[in-house]
Amino acid sequence: MNENLSADRPTFVTHLECSMTGERYEADQLHNLSRVGRPLLVRYDLDGVGAAVSRDQLAARETDLWRWRELLPVRHTRDIVSLGEIETPLIPIAKSGGANVLVKDEGRLPTGSFKARGLVMAVAMAKELGVTRIAMPTNGNAGAALAAYATRCGIETIVFCPEDTPEINVREIQAQGARVWRVNGLIDDCGAIVGKGAAEGRWFDFSTLKEPYRIEGKKTMGLELAAQLGWRLPKAIFYPTGGGTGLIGMWKAFDELERLGWIGSERPRMYAVQASGCAPIVRAFEAGEEHAERWEDAHTVAAGIRVPRAVGDFLILRAVRESGGKALGVGDPAILAAVDDCARRDGLLLCPEGGATLAAYKQALRDGEVDEDEEVVLFNCATGLKYPMPEAPNWLDRHGAIDFDQL
Amino acid sequence: MNENLSADRPTFVTHLECSMTGERYEADQLHNLSRVGRPLLVRYDLDGVGAAVSRDQLAARETDLWRWRELLPVRHTRDIVSLGEIETPLIPIAKSGGANVLVKDEGRLPTGSFKARGLVMAVAMAKELGVTRIAMPTNGNAGAALAAYATRCGIETIVFCPEDTPEINVREIQAQGARVWRVNGLIDDCGAIVGKGAAEGRWFDFSTLKEPYRIEGKKTMGLELAAQLGWRLPKAIFYPTGGGTGLIGMWKAFDELERLGWIGSERPRMYAVQASGCAPIVRAFEAGEEHAERWEDAHTVAAGIRVPRAVGDFLILRAVRESGGKALGVGDPAILAAVDDCARRDGLLLCPEGGATLAAYKQALRDGEVDEDEEVVLFNCATGLKYPMPEAPNWLDRHGAIDFDQL
Repeated sequence: MNENLSADRPTFVTHLECSMTGERYEADQLHNLSRVGRPLLVRYDLDGVGAAVSRDQLAARETDLWRWRELLPVRHTRDIVSLGEIETPLIPIAKSGGANVLVKDEGRLPTGSFKARGLVMAVAMAKELGVTRIAMPTNGNAGAALAAYATRCGIETIVFCPEDTPEINVREIQAQGARVWRVNGLIDDCGAIVGKGAAEGRWFDFSTLKEPYRIEGKKTMGLELAAQLGWRLPKAIFYPTGGGTGLIGMWKAFDELERLGWIGSERPRMYAVQASGCAPIVRAFEAGEEHAERWEDAHTVAAGIRVPRAVGDFLILRAVRESGGKALGVGDPAILAAVDDCARRDGLLLCPEGGATLAAYKQALRDGEVDEDEEVVLFNCATGLKYPMPEAPNWLDRHGAIDFDQL
Repeated sequence: MNENLSADRPTFVTHLECSMTGERYEADQLHNLSRVGRPLLVRYDLDGVGAAVSRDQLAARETDLWRWRELLPVRHTRDIVSLGEIETPLIPIAKSGGANVLVKDEGRLPTGSFKARGLVMAVAMAKELGVTRIAMPTNGNAGAALAAYATRCGIETIVFCPEDTPEINVREIQAQGARVWRVNGLIDDCGAIVGKGAAEGRWFDFSTLKEPYRIEGKKTMGLELAAQLGWRLPKAIFYPTGGGTGLIGMWKAFDELERLGWIGSERPRMYAVQASGCAPIVRAFEAGEEHAERWEDAHTVAAGIRVPRAVGDFLILRAVRESGGKALGVGDPAILAAVDDCARRDGLLLCPEGGATLAAYKQALRDGEVDEDEEVVLFNCATGLKYPMPEAPNWLDRHGAIDFDQL
């Protein structure tokens, strides 16, 4: 069986620090945001990590998320929660993308989305730190992942969804043992309810980046990518950006890997992809701002990136700029066309947010922003099966005369 | 990148043989059923395999399905089709199952079901042997897998579904580039249409077990299980049985592994699980018959095992009997209760067919057929996300007064 889940291993968290001010916070205590209201980042004794484990030793382990234990915050094997966090495959999409385009298919994770990475870590840490009740606002997939992992280790969960969250997500959250409420508003309206209850001491607030460990789970996307490509990175990454935890997490992962001497100083250009109907990061990027204002009247088919305001906005913008990448907006028609094209030609059904990355890549190609010779990774953040597909209208009467030429 | 997809490796297919008469058929030619209308089985030079590769060498490869190349029929690396056929995780379900119950979560495969294993192999072989047009009857998931892989390598596909096939499956098949028809009948009615067209030379017939290679793909469930458990097998396997390809395939895999000296002679008891509303194998098992008559008026929520007649019936019954297992029927209420229980307590959303295996296991436990100390593997054959879930009715007005005690 999988040793990653059972072998006791040393851990190397030294402290946490405010992503804005650098102020230091103790490890092994419950935290939400820093004193100035910004995300906390987990810091490690990387010399210790390097002395404890080598790239070759890591390569010899099972490939799931828990092989990265030395670079993760969970201290005790007993606190690991798992539903099988496999390493997600890199799938070429030569016809709809191009010869050098790989899709990292995050839909293969538990509960069908990359949210599992962040939530498995945050729930394990909540368990380790004695939390018994969690609330969260969600556009769908994060709530499903939270419900599954919290249920699995006996933590009570209450989840709030915007009213137009896909029906399948709401039902999935409930089926997996959480109490779920639809709210007439957007995700930040749901977040306000969670925040109010947390202030009253009713539950622990699990909103994106408002606890420090989801980012550590999402970081594994960057760690995996480096390992899968033989300890190098692609030229560009197109990442669907709502709260941006994954983009921030990968950027942090690359930094940790370089300090360990496991990769060099080269970085992919990071493209933060948003929908034109909800593009606060794109607007801030283009205006040269450090923070992004709330996007009013947000709307897009890609519900997962319908996030009007991101508490980690400055971290997203910083990573994008440092990398030489951009924030790009794509319209719903281009998103749906990309989903259709990839399924119809490469046999890979993307979620709309994954489709957005393909649409953005094609746009970047047309604009000369990327070259078709460059190796590029697109993130398909969830299984396409959770989303509406066009009707299939053909009916055949088996009792009638079948015209085989028409089939 | 994954060497399993790119490294040239020797292959060891010697011939095919009729599963009923043992009559020999040439390899590297197109085949459907044998002269007596029964499935063909692929035979290998196992001495050659044993000389070419060791268990340790296999363990060092990437863990996806293609690591088993020496035991698979695809001759040329160029004919490999892939959408990322990862090794599926074994997930404990201590609360709803018991301390020794593992679920092999096949929903993580491409197109969200174990059908990907069979179809990736059958499509690769069709490509290798020059097929350009394929037709298939399907209750849903097999058609989705066929569409994805055939689309990916440019083979045309026409798929026929019973009228009450889940809507999501029909749409998924179409989205992935196949032409799909709903038919007013059951899967064998759809099969008759496919057979008629095949007889007219319009397409190649990809019905379950009517071409020899799906079973070789499904066989990898058994190979993986042995490797994951450290080259031993569980005490019992509960397998949702429609056409039974996977059960037959695993039984064949265990035999090949023993002849290679990689496992011993011990076998799991194989439990073929069917729905009470469509249980031809259970009826034949209990009557001591070698073949199973067609089940009339088949109905069950578990559409994937609504198969009134299986062409490999005698192979299923033989494996079940040789193993000391049984064929077990479970009712729809027990299936739905098992799905609910596993999600609500272990955070794992099973498909109805997977729920059937959990329900059958609980029944076998009550009947003293299995002991709770025995290690058992249940097969969850598809992601639970493809199936209806109960409504989640709670609404909250963010403009109103929120009663936090009621949340």
